[in-house]
Amino acid sequence: MSTEKNAPKQAAAAQPATAITPTRAENYPEWYQQVVRAADLAENSDVRGCMVIKPWGYALWENIQRSLDKMFKDTGHKNAYFPLFIPLSYFEKEAEHVEGFAKECAVVTHHRLKPGVKADGKEGLIPDGELQEPLVVRPTSETIIGASFAKWVQSYRDLPLLINQWANVVRWEMRTRLFLRTAEFLWQEGHTAHATEKEAMEETLKMLEVYADFAENWMAMPVIKGEKTEGERFPGAVNTYCIEAMMQDRKALQAGTSHFLGQNFAHASDIKFSDAEGKISFAWTTSWGVSTRLIGGMIMTHADDDGMVLPPRLAPSHVVIIPVTHKPETAQAVLDFCNKLAADLRKIPYAGRTVDVEVDARDIRGGDKAWQWIKKGIPLRVEVGPRDMEQDSVFMARRDRAHKDKQSLKRDEFVATITTILEDMQSGLFARAKAHRDANMKRIDSRAEFEAFFGAKNEAEDAGGAVKGGFALVHYSPDPKLEDELKAKFAVTCRCIPVEGDAEPGTCIFSGKPSTRRAVFAKSY
Amino acid sequence: MSTEKNAPKQAAAAQPATAITPTRAENYPEWYQQVVRAADLAENSDVRGCMVIKPWGYALWENIQRSLDKMFKDTGHKNAYFPLFIPLSYFEKEAEHVEGFAKECAVVTHHRLKPGVKADGKEGLIPDGELQEPLVVRPTSETIIGASFAKWVQSYRDLPLLINQWANVVRWEMRTRLFLRTAEFLWQEGHTAHATEKEAMEETLKMLEVYADFAENWMAMPVIKGEKTEGERFPGAVNTYCIEAMMQDRKALQAGTSHFLGQNFAHASDIKFSDAEGKISFAWTTSWGVSTRLIGGMIMTHADDDGMVLPPRLAPSHVVIIPVTHKPETAQAVLDFCNKLAADLRKIPYAGRTVDVEVDARDIRGGDKAWQWIKKGIPLRVEVGPRDMEQDSVFMARRDRAHKDKQSLKRDEFVATITTILEDMQSGLFARAKAHRDANMKRIDSRAEFEAFFGAKNEAEDAGGAVKGGFALVHYSPDPKLEDELKAKFAVTCRCIPVEGDAEPGTCIFSGKPSTRRAVFAKSY
Repeated sequence: MSTEKNAPKQAAAAQPATAITPTRAENYPEWYQQVVRAADLAENSDVRGCMVIKPWGYALWENIQRSLDKMFKDTGHKNAYFPLFIPLSYFEKEAEHVEGFAKECAVVTHHRLKPGVKADGKEGLIPDGELQEPLVVRPTSETIIGASFAKWVQSYRDLPLLINQWANVVRWEMRTRLFLRTAEFLWQEGHTAHATEKEAMEETLKMLEVYADFAENWMAMPVIKGEKTEGERFPGAVNTYCIEAMMQDRKALQAGTSHFLGQNFAHASDIKFSDAEGKISFAWTTSWGVSTRLIGGMIMTHADDDGMVLPPRLAPSHVVIIPVTHKPETAQAVLDFCNKLAADLRKIPYAGRTVDVEVDARDIRGGDKAWQWIKKGIPLRVEVGPRDMEQDSVFMARRDRAHKDKQSLKRDEFVATITTILEDMQSGLFARAKAHRDANMKRIDSRAEFEAFFGAKNEAEDAGGAVKGGFALVHYSPDPKLEDELKAKFAVTCRCIPVEGDAEPGTCIFSGKPSTRRAVFAKSY
Repeated sequence: MSTEKNAPKQAAAAQPATAITPTRAENYPEWYQQVVRAADLAENSDVRGCMVIKPWGYALWENIQRSLDKMFKDTGHKNAYFPLFIPLSYFEKEAEHVEGFAKECAVVTHHRLKPGVKADGKEGLIPDGELQEPLVVRPTSETIIGASFAKWVQSYRDLPLLINQWANVVRWEMRTRLFLRTAEFLWQEGHTAHATEKEAMEETLKMLEVYADFAENWMAMPVIKGEKTEGERFPGAVNTYCIEAMMQDRKALQAGTSHFLGQNFAHASDIKFSDAEGKISFAWTTSWGVSTRLIGGMIMTHADDDGMVLPPRLAPSHVVIIPVTHKPETAQAVLDFCNKLAADLRKIPYAGRTVDVEVDARDIRGGDKAWQWIKKGIPLRVEVGPRDMEQDSVFMARRDRAHKDKQSLKRDEFVATITTILEDMQSGLFARAKAHRDANMKRIDSRAEFEAFFGAKNEAEDAGGAVKGGFALVHYSPDPKLEDELKAKFAVTCRCIPVEGDAEPGTCIFSGKPSTRRAVFAKSY
């Protein structure tokens, strides 16, 4: 794949000034697709709505998994694995649940193929062996895991039951976008059962806290923790909590959800236990999940017009070392110097693993090589030429600064300070994202101001034009009908009612009814 | 779940003498199911042929994954993720391949549900939104990954392409058995593309070596590396290599396969590259995989009549510490002692992680507690009572010795020697398994002797009776028709033609044709 056409440092006047075309300002949705492509994170497959996660994107997912998995285990959860297929009859047990997913699920109806005539009239293989009961490919696993929980839970001694699953799920989406909305995606789904309502609610909020902690301290993505209003609740849940982040185009991204399911799914799956006195009760359950969507959130929070920018704690590699040698007589010595440097760096603990290093000695033009790594978002680029080697120094560039802003450092100083530099980048990315969000979050106290803030729904925005608005903090008394109206007119939804911050009495800007705290409204992904 | 009825140490005369009923000698297949159940590794789900992998079993799989993943990365492979669904037309591109899997694949034909009348005449949801082209749930991913490789490979510079995927796959099996044969299972599948036949063959054999290394050094399961004969080849492969292990009932288990695919799949998926001179050629590809079946292999290699026996390097936990206190006044001090011991042990590096410790302070009978851990196969059990605490010592039992054979050790000595003890157990398990295999592997030089060794296929064996035979090493000139006959008459297959060991000329015991080395014949899973 040639990178030349996007490389801004080429002399030709026709070259664009940025590595990614179009820029964020020119067309944000298209910029997003181009960043994913240029960073080699993922690509569309020929299978409707399904993506291929390429090695650089998958390594990012592995780091997300490793960090989150540790947080889940540290809070007492254990991993397990449940069937991909859900018998239709299980799925139908919770009425709201099945209604929520019926329009977007892949259905297995046959268990073999036989020779025959296809729909297009040609000969070939056709489905055969029709199943007595169709199987739904899991869009989420409350009902299939509930069936196991019903067997595992007998006594209060079996509770709490704290389980997590890493898996693929399928939701048949008509309009897909890499990482943000795909028919198949990877995620984790926590499922827990408790003896009391109080414990289940505590678990729901504890996992919301874990997600917020992960988003802010690992992804460097500031989030607001809040509760969804009725229309945005998970099908079958009593309460749905979420973390909401602001993307660079000022739209919101729901980055994780934690559901208090009450006894709804315990009733549907018959999860019962006897308490210390022998009385039989239904358990209280929760579920919570984050997905490969987080990668989309990271891109839209940190990437710039030159491509991906990776938060160091999750970056697949932290530093690329590029030997810069034009003379064959110094080539091996410079490469040896680079490999030795890499070996030393790889011993340094960082973010729960050790520093990850690439040595890129490929025989391609140095400019192309540097731009490939810039577009991939690697935090640090280090160049070593014969003169650097003689002076025992390296030439370092940070992805969060101008690309020309390179710094010469003594080799040992670089080794000694690399984790400090990475942590400085990590906190810098968070601070920048938070400043952007705070600058675009506004307290609004009248409907007129609200409408002016967002502007009417328009085609220019849909086509990639600048998005009007941001996060509006308004007093609001929940009303599903009004939310439908706001969505239709302004493409705006109530993202959440924040769970933190002081209660602040006021009156709903739409209905005039009393309100105890402000809700967040925004356009969203 | 009460454990009393299986606990041999209970006084009642009616109790069986072993924790698992039946024993291996009484009914091996049923013993296997009971070990899986008693060790809480997995269970059948209500979904036809699909299993639920329970936390203890999944933790074992996570350790398998972690160790293998490191071996794959150390040999230059990168992980990626490809779609779950394969369009039927892709699947049909390689004729032998589709023929091999057509009879056992789950087919998605619809993408939503609607209200309607079901097959049983009742009202409910029925499949709706028929797909233009049916999608096969991947039984293996050569064709879908091939489609990506065709895009990724343009030039010889893009080769070799070394990719691995951790995923779930579905093969619709009619007769299933937990871990050994299930409709859905978890696995890894490596897929690589190379510029030359030689490189692809080297890769095929390198990964066979990785599998053998893993089986012997991590699972403590001795294996024979060999090549499959034509009838046992992967559908579409040119050569299939395998590792074969002998279970305690002397049947063979194919524990991993590595396929040299020639240019078959490159032709089917159009994976082409231009070499340094600009000439276009088809690539040479390989694929290789191991699955959750390995857990079945570990059980059948090491478990005994008291339940699971875990090879320490892969054990989810290495040691359980059980506080033994009858007096409330010492309970807290003993528990503190145990927790401090656990904390010290958890700092000790072992097998690529640190020592994993459980402190089991549950309020249940000590005998029940010990037996639960014996059945789960934890390598070491440590009991600490008030007197042990006073003497700063612990009481240790090893899972590979008689349960009554407990040893008193100074606490510090136990901490200092735990990894030595674990490694001693690891090598002991391997030695025991190897001795069993070698004792049941026989050079056989006539058909009569071969028939006497295995005996005719019989119902008693199928019903769980003792299996006659073992590994027969015979001179053999491959003949698919003969293999069908041997399978029908003796339930015996050619497991492989070993790739190692000196060539030893001879004549086929069936046909009298010349043979250069002995093949392995056995009954198998």
